Amino acid sequence: MSKGEETRKRIIAKAAPLFNKRGFDGASMQDIVAAAGLQKGSLYGHFASKEELALEAFDLAWAETCKARAGNLDEAANSVDKLKLHVENVVTQRPFPGGCPLLNTAIDADDGDAALRRRAQKALQSWNGLLRAIVQDGKDKGEIKSEVDPEYVASLIISLLEGASFSSQLERTGRALLIAQKHLNAYLEDEVRAAG
Amino acid sequence: MSKGEETRKRIIAKAAPLFNKRGFDGASMQDIVAAAGLQKGSLYGHFASKEELALEAFDLAWAETCKARAGNLDEAANSVDKLKLHVENVVTQRPFPGGCPLLNTAIDADDGDAALRRRAQKALQSWNGLLRAIVQDGKDKGEIKSEVDPEYVASLIISLLEGASFSSQLERTGRALLIAQKHLNAYLEDEVRAAG
Repeated sequence: MSKGEETRKRIIAKAAPLFNKRGFDGASMQDIVAAAGLQKGSLYGHFASKEELALEAFDLAWAETCKARAGNLDEAANSVDKLKLHVENVVTQRPFPGGCPLLNTAIDADDGDAALRRRAQKALQSWNGLLRAIVQDGKDKGEIKSEVDPEYVASLIISLLEGASFSSQLERTGRALLIAQKHLNAYLEDEVRAAG
Repeated sequence: MSKGEETRKRIIAKAAPLFNKRGFDGASMQDIVAAAGLQKGSLYGHFASKEELALEAFDLAWAETCKARAGNLDEAANSVDKLKLHVENVVTQRPFPGGCPLLNTAIDADDGDAALRRRAQKALQSWNGLLRAIVQDGKDKGEIKSEVDPEYVASLIISLLEGASFSSQLERTGRALLIAQKHLNAYLEDEVRAAG
């Protein structure tokens, strides 16, 4: 990796928590320069715009979040167990500094930066697609009841986990996340898993 | 109402959608002055700080949201039907411009303005308290199963509705909210309502 690439990566790594905590408007280029230990003005040698840096910062934050939430799913052989492990990951893993980058970026960019908003939409679609694929695979293998709708399961898991992450973060307790996990585990066992 | 009070109310009404859409940092005092049709500088005759205005703007946005979500609950006599009506309100009512003010303000203020964050915490507690009280009332009247935990029901409803609002807003479809409603209605009928 060239020195320029290294610097670029370091800037993105320092910028990602700042954008995730403070939002696109709230994170100033000056703060990012300071966090990366650079001279003012040198940032634009690496990024054409604040938007370009914010997009790369989101990609990094989301990639790390996905790794923490889904990186170990192959450890579970059964598709229902994969879904339960995924829920457990979201509930127990330390979130990226500032909380879920998808939630933060989507809310921040909802009436803001259009490119960031599209990035968040794609992230949601890809998360939804991952869960749908696990459910479809489980149906194909007979591990999941044939009448289960993959879209319903994926949407329910994502909505409940994101909403509970939001409540838990606001309350500074993990209570809402634990209730979400209990509910999803019971739902997955009772209504999704095929009779053995 | 004095002319000063009228002007103050008009400023808050114009500021509330701007703060809700753009966040505390993103909504500039200049935008608010322009939206309220005032001269620059005249705002600080009515509000000591941007924070004071943002707090009042949140209170207005949240009061309108609560009215839309819970203003008609007395129309349902049974406590389970009240909960279902509340869910229906959240799913079908047009949200305050910019989406749920609680979600927006909580995310925006999470690493930002401390007073706004406390206001969002209180709003979440009061929403949770409203739902817990309905469940407790239903238990007392024998409409709700005795083993049902009011905190579990309140947290589940709020997390799922807020998460689905987030997904629906990002996707620009109502799909996640309709799935949340379907799930909550089935849960309330099957696991919450006492056998008739």
